[in-house]
Amino acid sequence: MTALSPHPDRLLPADPGTREVARGLYAAVADAPIYSPHGHVDAGMLLEDEPFDDPAALLITPDHYVVRLLHAVGVPLERLGLRHVENSEGAGAPGSGREIWRALCEHWDVFLGTPVRYWFESEFAGVFGLTEAPSAVTADALYDQLVDTLSRPEFRPRALFDRFNIAVLATTDDPADDLSAHLALRDDPTFTGRVVPTFRADRYMHPLEPTWRGRLDALSAAANIDCGNHAGLLDALRSRRAYFKAAGGTATDTGTIDAGSEPLADADAERIHREALAGTITQADADAYRRTMLYRLAEMSAEDGLVMQLHAGVIRNHHRPTFDAFGPDTGHDLPAAGGYTVPLTPILRDFGVNPTFRIVLFTVDETLFSREIAPLAGFYPSVFAGAPWWFLDSPAGIARYRAAVTDSAGFAKTSGFIDDTRAYCSIPARHDMSRRLDAGYLASLVTTHQLSEDDALTLAHRLVADIPVSTFRL
Amino acid sequence: MTALSPHPDRLLPADPGTREVARGLYAAVADAPIYSPHGHVDAGMLLEDEPFDDPAALLITPDHYVVRLLHAVGVPLERLGLRHVENSEGAGAPGSGREIWRALCEHWDVFLGTPVRYWFESEFAGVFGLTEAPSAVTADALYDQLVDTLSRPEFRPRALFDRFNIAVLATTDDPADDLSAHLALRDDPTFTGRVVPTFRADRYMHPLEPTWRGRLDALSAAANIDCGNHAGLLDALRSRRAYFKAAGGTATDTGTIDAGSEPLADADAERIHREALAGTITQADADAYRRTMLYRLAEMSAEDGLVMQLHAGVIRNHHRPTFDAFGPDTGHDLPAAGGYTVPLTPILRDFGVNPTFRIVLFTVDETLFSREIAPLAGFYPSVFAGAPWWFLDSPAGIARYRAAVTDSAGFAKTSGFIDDTRAYCSIPARHDMSRRLDAGYLASLVTTHQLSEDDALTLAHRLVADIPVSTFRL
Amino acid sequence: MTALSPHPDRLLPADPGTREVARGLYAAVADAPIYSPHGHVDAGMLLEDEPFDDPAALLITPDHYVVRLLHAVGVPLERLGLRHVENSEGAGAPGSGREIWRALCEHWDVFLGTPVRYWFESEFAGVFGLTEAPSAVTADALYDQLVDTLSRPEFRPRALFDRFNIAVLATTDDPADDLSAHLALRDDPTFTGRVVPTFRADRYMHPLEPTWRGRLDALSAAANIDCGNHAGLLDALRSRRAYFKAAGGTATDTGTIDAGSEPLADADAERIHREALAGTITQADADAYRRTMLYRLAEMSAEDGLVMQLHAGVIRNHHRPTFDAFGPDTGHDLPAAGGYTVPLTPILRDFGVNPTFRIVLFTVDETLFSREIAPLAGFYPSVFAGAPWWFLDSPAGIARYRAAVTDSAGFAKTSGFIDDTRAYCSIPARHDMSRRLDAGYLASLVTTHQLSEDDALTLAHRLVADIPVSTFRL
Repeated sequence: MTALSPHPDRLLPADPGTREVARGLYAAVADAPIYSPHGHVDAGMLLEDEPFDDPAALLITPDHYVVRLLHAVGVPLERLGLRHVENSEGAGAPGSGREIWRALCEHWDVFLGTPVRYWFESEFAGVFGLTEAPSAVTADALYDQLVDTLSRPEFRPRALFDRFNIAVLATTDDPADDLSAHLALRDDPTFTGRVVPTFRADRYMHPLEPTWRGRLDALSAAANIDCGNHAGLLDALRSRRAYFKAAGGTATDTGTIDAGSEPLADADAERIHREALAGTITQADADAYRRTMLYRLAEMSAEDGLVMQLHAGVIRNHHRPTFDAFGPDTGHDLPAAGGYTVPLTPILRDFGVNPTFRIVLFTVDETLFSREIAPLAGFYPSVFAGAPWWFLDSPAGIARYRAAVTDSAGFAKTSGFIDDTRAYCSIPARHDMSRRLDAGYLASLVTTHQLSEDDALTLAHRLVADIPVSTFRL
Repeated sequence: MTALSPHPDRLLPADPGTREVARGLYAAVADAPIYSPHGHVDAGMLLEDEPFDDPAALLITPDHYVVRLLHAVGVPLERLGLRHVENSEGAGAPGSGREIWRALCEHWDVFLGTPVRYWFESEFAGVFGLTEAPSAVTADALYDQLVDTLSRPEFRPRALFDRFNIAVLATTDDPADDLSAHLALRDDPTFTGRVVPTFRADRYMHPLEPTWRGRLDALSAAANIDCGNHAGLLDALRSRRAYFKAAGGTATDTGTIDAGSEPLADADAERIHREALAGTITQADADAYRRTMLYRLAEMSAEDGLVMQLHAGVIRNHHRPTFDAFGPDTGHDLPAAGGYTVPLTPILRDFGVNPTFRIVLFTVDETLFSREIAPLAGFYPSVFAGAPWWFLDSPAGIARYRAAVTDSAGFAKTSGFIDDTRAYCSIPARHDMSRRLDAGYLASLVTTHQLSEDDALTLAHRLVADIPVSTFRL
Repeated sequence: MTALSPHPDRLLPADPGTREVARGLYAAVADAPIYSPHGHVDAGMLLEDEPFDDPAALLITPDHYVVRLLHAVGVPLERLGLRHVENSEGAGAPGSGREIWRALCEHWDVFLGTPVRYWFESEFAGVFGLTEAPSAVTADALYDQLVDTLSRPEFRPRALFDRFNIAVLATTDDPADDLSAHLALRDDPTFTGRVVPTFRADRYMHPLEPTWRGRLDALSAAANIDCGNHAGLLDALRSRRAYFKAAGGTATDTGTIDAGSEPLADADAERIHREALAGTITQADADAYRRTMLYRLAEMSAEDGLVMQLHAGVIRNHHRPTFDAFGPDTGHDLPAAGGYTVPLTPILRDFGVNPTFRIVLFTVDETLFSREIAPLAGFYPSVFAGAPWWFLDSPAGIARYRAAVTDSAGFAKTSGFIDDTRAYCSIPARHDMSRRLDAGYLASLVTTHQLSEDDALTLAHRLVADIPVSTFRL
């Protein structure tokens, strides 16, 4: 059996002199409160504050980072708790949590060298107090220990929220959501945390999707505005943005296959909207509709000041048979070759120097960091370089991001770290990783005399506090 | 004169602590047998086991890595032993080997900092026992020494095979090849090595090529199946794959300009096949034919389990005048901007989770490592991330590959090192380079506490043995 | 207040052993003369040799690296001395220089970690003798000190030219320029420097530009050849190239959105030329015209031996409202996704192995370094890999360039450092940065035993002298 004991100096630079500087910088911010301006935790979980009952359902099944690599080495998705679409409402077989956990433990060496293993080790040791590494031999004992641990009051969601020292947690929410959980949390005198919604209108941008019409109905009801035409949809979205803002929201989020943003004339948008409802829309018109919607969302941000987050360039559901069997978010969303400078031209032309407008650009195509995102952030007051995302959210990816972005955008035009996670208990490990890596990057600038130690310390503090607070208008 | 004495610590990390760890990891695998699952050595050379008679013909002329950079600084291809197409059957002028060798020695400083020089230094010292660096002054003496050395029995191909400690050597072969050399080697009790063929059907995929029809005839004869129609061609290829498999083959290889793989309906494929034979095919149809062929080759791999290697994204024969004068493989094949995720969709949709199917993806566009290849290998059980190839097969390129691929694919979904060489005597130097670099990469994870020293040692062993054996089903 | 004291070891590698080697290499070339084969200094400034009167006009307003990042954090361009197009001939308001300087000082921390701050620190301390860092507190005192310093005779342009130890300074000039400043400098016995013109014909390549016709008139007058037809334009350019060459020019420069170079038949080019003059040209024809012009410029280089520099892949004037208000070169030129291998095919097919022809390829899309530029330079005798440019001209960018280019192109096929600057007083700091970084890169090859210390020293010398002199035929 192997001990699980993450090293206090983990991720700090190997060179002893640089490590010494990095240690000091990291120590200064290691315990600072966490700002999490973008993620996928469920506000209802915090409201209800029920104990987590199954380690696998908490740690494995919903985390596509974990599921995908296990699948890649031959573990069927069923064995990991994913349910076939047709019986997605049914319960898993009894005991399946333990089997899922065993699958992880048996394949623990598959994760060697990956950020998933790094996060898990920090989380298992730091949050749950495990002292032995997962393996086929230790699987059952660790599972029992986790079940026992999760049943204790200090492992309920709210207790963890306090222990994680989360200052602000942003969720991601549909415009039709009534945000009842957020409002209840805000009004609950026993909960002192801050949980803010994020307005994500993706589902209204794709009129070819079979679910589009149903979404319009839900939104019409939520906003009490008829979305049967394009102007109505825009009005409803505006109304819901105001509702989100009143509920504490400061930002929106959009994910698209590309960043095209050419606005349509009203008559053209209305025609496509009508044809979409009639079921006669073409793919080209659907694309044009998505792009005009992106433009209109930017226009709304220029009006109401909600910070626009843009995550362009993901091919969703690449493996059609898996999508048909298990539905979306099952590990086969994949990066596309991207671009921002050309497709964002309409938005930046009209709102790029508008002081109310703000847009944070994320990518899974790292060639954009030095070629597009940093140069855009280095001219447009409205543009910020988003932290490395998804496939790039790793020690090596973050190092490449800093090296590629700082030249043109400095630190002031970057977003600060984003955990973007559904894995609630991994939040401290992810932010801690970022703090260690930034300490190492700043230390490397210090030991090569590109930065004074005082300036590095100032930046280390800003990166965990001022920068996310300011960028996301928290 | 400068001594030629490669340093025992070459390529290991500069940081003393990391180097110490890397030394231990490297020492553990430095003498492990070589698995070479992809390369271009001639099996006939091993069968005949004739002494190499000319150092230049062995070391320079056939190695386009060497030829291209000498050409780039102004050495005409003729001077390097390349022959004009019209007299390609004629012998070189007497004494030309020495002159070619002199050209290399006189331009030795051109290779400073390149992997070619690194390989040559390891090979000259380690294989041939040279003790002085090439230069205009030493050229003749070194040439004489090499000629003398090559005439000795221990420098014949089979003796070197043993000395190189090659466990498996894969060649690259045309489907019409009778594999007589492979079969004779297998049946030769005096040769204990394992030399396996690789099925490469590229020449049958390009119906616009003037040589296509002749190739069909040769294949028809080899398979005893008429390739006059598309179904016949596919049957013949299936038959020859079985023949290759029976002769010890475990893999195929395909090189294409892109990875498009949309299958055609049988009738469409037959029409294009007919028109190609009639000489009336269009470029668009030729492209469609190439893509359906790629799909069919994947389909065959899903049936017979031969591991599919895919090398997409090379622009062949960029400089037309050089091609016209000297033919193909003369140093001006160049990387194209690539992509796998979108064009491979048909193959991965139909065979991506099929346990018999396996595909190893290689690229000369390194932006694909983190954006496409690692994410694909991190979901699809069938997909493996191929080692850095050709222009990327260097210390710096390999370091970038590991840093870009490990996050999403770990180590288990990578291919292991591939030497891909025609330069037989460089094989030990190339694998040794890879072992040093992997030791350094693993050591850097150890000293930053992302990996334990035990795990690093396990991985170092796997990378040179289990991983290539398993990936290529050796 | 913070002291301004750039560290003697700045930018050298952190690892102590590597730093020690790098120190020696850097020391050997630190004081070598500067070859600046590409830049934007005004020859007239050197001819007139007037004192610089305003620090802001010297250091801030014309430097778009500085202006763009200040703009990105909210400083209006007006406040930085940029003038609205309609009153661009008018003088700035009195005292504006001090206010611009204050804007820089107040936002000094925005530049932390960027090359702009690095250059400024070297320049402020090394050229102007400032001892305190810019800040809101020190702004006025520093401004006064700079004004005083600039009034001293040793800070006039020619005195600085000597002090900077510039061996050759290349400017960038319009073909219609009479080069009177260059000729006067050459004939001035009191000026011993060498200032050579560079022929930049961009303005004649874009027949849709409103200024095109006016440019033709100016060129017709300068060359005394009618540019009313395409053949006349080509003749006029040929004539002016000869004029530039006679005035000491050794190179040309071209900036285009892409590297397309397909030549048109004469009749087609003449037709487009006519339609452009008539105002009836299409965008597609304008693009075809630009591409044939690129081909013709290469053809001329193959005749007259002027070294062709190609800077493809910049989207000019991305933010239209800023362009309308302030004109070009105001910080919103942005990198485009690029490519050389395919679009340059016509030029390389016809001139790629022509010993008179030479082309240096620059990019702001760093994916091209390992995928296109180094592989092209590693085969074609005519192709050289240009130094990192613009957004990539930074410590991190230069490190990535060396790591990406050396494998395929070595050092001999690279251009040597290019400062490409309008900021005259930053020239020593920029070349010094390059020398430090190359020393560090070479040292890292030494400590990993890929290069001997002797070879590293030879290369360090070549990189600052032989290589630029030879590449640019100085």
